[in-house]
Amino acid sequence: MVGWCIFARLFMSTSYDPGIGEKFSHRTQRAINHDGSFNVRRSGGGHRFDPYQRLIRMPWWPFMGWVVLFFALLTGAFAGLYLLLGPGGLAGVPPAPGQGQAFLSALFFSIQTFTSVGYGHVYPASNAAGFVSSLEALVGVLTFALATGLLYGRFSRPTARLLFSRSVLISRRPDSGLPMLVFRVANLRDSILIDISARVLLKTLVTETGNYAYAPLKLERDAISLLPLSWTLVHDITPDSPLQGLTAADFQARDVEVIVLLKAYDDTFAQDVHARNSYVYGEIEWHRRFVRAFTVAPDGVAVVDLDKLDDTEILNVEG
Amino acid sequence: MVGWCIFARLFMSTSYDPGIGEKFSHRTQRAINHDGSFNVRRSGGGHRFDPYQRLIRMPWWPFMGWVVLFFALLTGAFAGLYLLLGPGGLAGVPPAPGQGQAFLSALFFSIQTFTSVGYGHVYPASNAAGFVSSLEALVGVLTFALATGLLYGRFSRPTARLLFSRSVLISRRPDSGLPMLVFRVANLRDSILIDISARVLLKTLVTETGNYAYAPLKLERDAISLLPLSWTLVHDITPDSPLQGLTAADFQARDVEVIVLLKAYDDTFAQDVHARNSYVYGEIEWHRRFVRAFTVAPDGVAVVDLDKLDDTEILNVEG
Amino acid sequence: MVGWCIFARLFMSTSYDPGIGEKFSHRTQRAINHDGSFNVRRSGGGHRFDPYQRLIRMPWWPFMGWVVLFFALLTGAFAGLYLLLGPGGLAGVPPAPGQGQAFLSALFFSIQTFTSVGYGHVYPASNAAGFVSSLEALVGVLTFALATGLLYGRFSRPTARLLFSRSVLISRRPDSGLPMLVFRVANLRDSILIDISARVLLKTLVTETGNYAYAPLKLERDAISLLPLSWTLVHDITPDSPLQGLTAADFQARDVEVIVLLKAYDDTFAQDVHARNSYVYGEIEWHRRFVRAFTVAPDGVAVVDLDKLDDTEILNVEG
Amino acid sequence: MVGWCIFARLFMSTSYDPGIGEKFSHRTQRAINHDGSFNVRRSGGGHRFDPYQRLIRMPWWPFMGWVVLFFALLTGAFAGLYLLLGPGGLAGVPPAPGQGQAFLSALFFSIQTFTSVGYGHVYPASNAAGFVSSLEALVGVLTFALATGLLYGRFSRPTARLLFSRSVLISRRPDSGLPMLVFRVANLRDSILIDISARVLLKTLVTETGNYAYAPLKLERDAISLLPLSWTLVHDITPDSPLQGLTAADFQARDVEVIVLLKAYDDTFAQDVHARNSYVYGEIEWHRRFVRAFTVAPDGVAVVDLDKLDDTEILNVEG
Repeated sequence: MVGWCIFARLFMSTSYDPGIGEKFSHRTQRAINHDGSFNVRRSGGGHRFDPYQRLIRMPWWPFMGWVVLFFALLTGAFAGLYLLLGPGGLAGVPPAPGQGQAFLSALFFSIQTFTSVGYGHVYPASNAAGFVSSLEALVGVLTFALATGLLYGRFSRPTARLLFSRSVLISRRPDSGLPMLVFRVANLRDSILIDISARVLLKTLVTETGNYAYAPLKLERDAISLLPLSWTLVHDITPDSPLQGLTAADFQARDVEVIVLLKAYDDTFAQDVHARNSYVYGEIEWHRRFVRAFTVAPDGVAVVDLDKLDDTEILNVEG
Repeated sequence: MVGWCIFARLFMSTSYDPGIGEKFSHRTQRAINHDGSFNVRRSGGGHRFDPYQRLIRMPWWPFMGWVVLFFALLTGAFAGLYLLLGPGGLAGVPPAPGQGQAFLSALFFSIQTFTSVGYGHVYPASNAAGFVSSLEALVGVLTFALATGLLYGRFSRPTARLLFSRSVLISRRPDSGLPMLVFRVANLRDSILIDISARVLLKTLVTETGNYAYAPLKLERDAISLLPLSWTLVHDITPDSPLQGLTAADFQARDVEVIVLLKAYDDTFAQDVHARNSYVYGEIEWHRRFVRAFTVAPDGVAVVDLDKLDDTEILNVEG
Repeated sequence: MVGWCIFARLFMSTSYDPGIGEKFSHRTQRAINHDGSFNVRRSGGGHRFDPYQRLIRMPWWPFMGWVVLFFALLTGAFAGLYLLLGPGGLAGVPPAPGQGQAFLSALFFSIQTFTSVGYGHVYPASNAAGFVSSLEALVGVLTFALATGLLYGRFSRPTARLLFSRSVLISRRPDSGLPMLVFRVANLRDSILIDISARVLLKTLVTETGNYAYAPLKLERDAISLLPLSWTLVHDITPDSPLQGLTAADFQARDVEVIVLLKAYDDTFAQDVHARNSYVYGEIEWHRRFVRAFTVAPDGVAVVDLDKLDDTEILNVEG
Repeated sequence: MVGWCIFARLFMSTSYDPGIGEKFSHRTQRAINHDGSFNVRRSGGGHRFDPYQRLIRMPWWPFMGWVVLFFALLTGAFAGLYLLLGPGGLAGVPPAPGQGQAFLSALFFSIQTFTSVGYGHVYPASNAAGFVSSLEALVGVLTFALATGLLYGRFSRPTARLLFSRSVLISRRPDSGLPMLVFRVANLRDSILIDISARVLLKTLVTETGNYAYAPLKLERDAISLLPLSWTLVHDITPDSPLQGLTAADFQARDVEVIVLLKAYDDTFAQDVHARNSYVYGEIEWHRRFVRAFTVAPDGVAVVDLDKLDDTEILNVEG
């Protein structure tokens, strides 16, 4: 696989600058969070504020909040402008007992203009009001044009919703009894995933120098054609594995983090999607194995039970 | 080809977890349906409901039905709100003989606000009605922004419309007389397909264990540059083929399924498209061969007859 | 290059079914037109009518014509409905002297509803007119949602605008004097093209059988990193070239067609774009070579003259 | 890596036409500017004017200016048409003292129609005004459909915002003391970049012929999996490097330009993004090395300081 070749080139040689493995001055948090984000901050004047990135990536409730706030501020500001134009600006407004009611009437007219509803029982009667309402109509239509794009961008952004098993297991092969590291993934979506490929990195503290080192963990199989059920990823702890001979205490002392990068083609988005996850010491279990997470229903259809993806049992050492 | 390399790595070794080939407890239905979907169900709380995936993938008539239903429910709910505000809420409504007519008038006003038509012969006369109609106008414009994105997403989703021959044939090469498995595909669309590649898997029941095994079927050619006419895919049943020596009875006993994965670049969508299909025992024919499905018209233009893609004739054993 | 591997596998072996090279019953037109389309027709009931494909690919004038026609027919049909509802349907229409004027008034109201302008000097006065106008407002808003998507899809569709030299030349290398086939391409757009790759096929009539054969023409270089100026593609006519030893008369007798497939990443579209072209006998010139198509301006900027892409001169045989 | 294979094939052989390395008549400006554009102009009738490309690539302020200008011209032209139709065209316009006020009233009506606000206090009273306003409403809605697409296209266009170090350094390896060329890049955005790959070209003046030659500079590592912090790219000046033995004076005399092409997958855009940059003589520093541009905060999170990406220090020769 091409990806693997890149990966191999990346880690097989000593290097002046290891990229992801740059030297840290002391113990760091996990490199990758469960939601796939990095534990990295940026500082400096060059740091780019990206409104599009923010608006696309934020959850739905804050997004809708910003939309409503932006709408309220903008129509409120135009309502203030209409008030400034005085009573001759807007015709059809009933005589108001106070400034508050006058603002509300102007606000309703402003919203009717911004959304291009334009009932017309209130209308601009002066040239100044005509200009301001024309500008507001233009701003309103362009704002909703932008909102259309953002809503589509949010909905259509290709993202993977993969369920990773909560833990990685240090287990043994049922046939040979040789040790292996295993974890599972399943697709939370009903979408069809094609050509799923995986890469696994091991991050360890080099206790002699206080720095962190990164090494690839070779997978028994690093790609599958389709992912209808679940996929169990296996790294055999052979003599050339960086995990060879490590005890649970070593895992803790070396601040081990198992980093997982997944990539697949999603048939609904018609694009590649990526997922990332990592496991730290507290998320590694020894001497356990996974229990099958799917059954075949009486009608011959395979049924994946996502609740069972984390189900494990004690490893029968003879097994 | 890269894809083939992934594919080969996927199936050439014995494995702890064969991915698509995970062990089933008894006979299963076909793995892949003719529309490319999997015969898999999901259960468990983690199963993700994806409104976007649903709304993008459902056929057009249900989609339009949901749109109209959503529109009716939302404008109806706002009409109810206007009624609750009492007769002082909406000005311009003619005196109504009954509650039904009052609701209809409120509904029409609601729809005129939601779609931002806003004739204005009816208009909000109280502050409460002003607020509700402002909210409805905002909701309406955002709803149609969403609808714009969904309609575009549905229309522009890159999908392949490939016609597969109804059956695979167990035939013989005209030159050498050696056995082969063949089937055909053609592009139902007028779009230009580029770099079409194919992979074929064989799913068989291992009768000794009651489990299913998967193996790749090597194609004489697994990729073509262009697909203007039809493409006949050929697997030679050589001694290293998993089909070598199998009789028709064996095919039935082993619950054979031939799984096909196709990928191509579509020049209209400017993206890769994928198609899947499978053939089970009842869709395999012996001792037949395909008849040519295209002709050359008098003006020198090649004409593909899609109705003839399934046309076969009895195999002349001498041929 | 991966693409080349596919390509090589495609043509290096004899085959049961040559894909693009399927056997034709007599002389065919050129396989690929200068606009990149195939000379292929489809027949049969399975042939898929794709409104999206049509609406995205058609030129701008017919597209705008269809938009206006659709708009006129739909608003006209709704105008007819309003007429059917009688004089009580629409309020605010001035008394009309004839049926024509009544239709025009209904049509203007219909258009104001469809586009959600809704001045309101005319408005629906009966429940029936209320329902019809509500439906029209919904249809109108959804229609423009669709139009938004189509306009965006047309504008944003990744397409290459490459200028191919009008002819291929049978020329000679200036250093060795060995024969070669050359043609040139340049980017008509201001966009940045990255990783441009090319494949060339030769289509020839096998005079003994009356069928056509396809063979790849190996390029001296089949990919470049950037295409700021022009790119001259070279096929050396070495002993293993299918063109070796062919005279101009042979080219005509064998109905030669040189098919070119180009692919590149376009930095504006941020996607891969493809281009196709072909050269037939009348578009091949012998004993000529290309003249340089660019200069360096006094300010040190390279200037490509697209008008000179076709400029050739007689080949100095000593050269 | 695949890209590297293309790259290698591109430069490893002598060639009839070196593509990017076509011969120039005299000294040229830098090939690639810091914003990634080429120093190339196009002339000739075939040069394609691409409104979409222009509107997508231009900065935001000119874009908004063109939108306002287009809006003003179009609504102004329709206002002129309404004036031409005379006082019977628009009803509801207050008697105007002069032609200027009449135009303003027509302009406000025109804008209310174009944006589909349609208050209705002014409305079309004649058939001619009905037709013109219907046309304007259609043009208006389609214009905003187009604007919606353009705004989305501008926002969603996958672009990389990579910060390159201002200079490349000619430095020495801390371990072996061997010479190397280094520069750094960091991601200005908060987006996650995956599978970042790089290619570096050297452009030099061949003083004997007055032409320019291009050669690849092999990188110690040409791809990394993730780019959370900064990436230091290293070219070792080994005996087979085209930089071997060159002094600073040679760099100037040979008009050296180091061209960098970067490619990565951006997790927000879910597409590949590209970046380009180049370094000329004045942007090369000798005997310096980079200072670390990140720290680990007390909470264990790595912090990249983008302001320090250019920080260098004098090279300790013993180092």
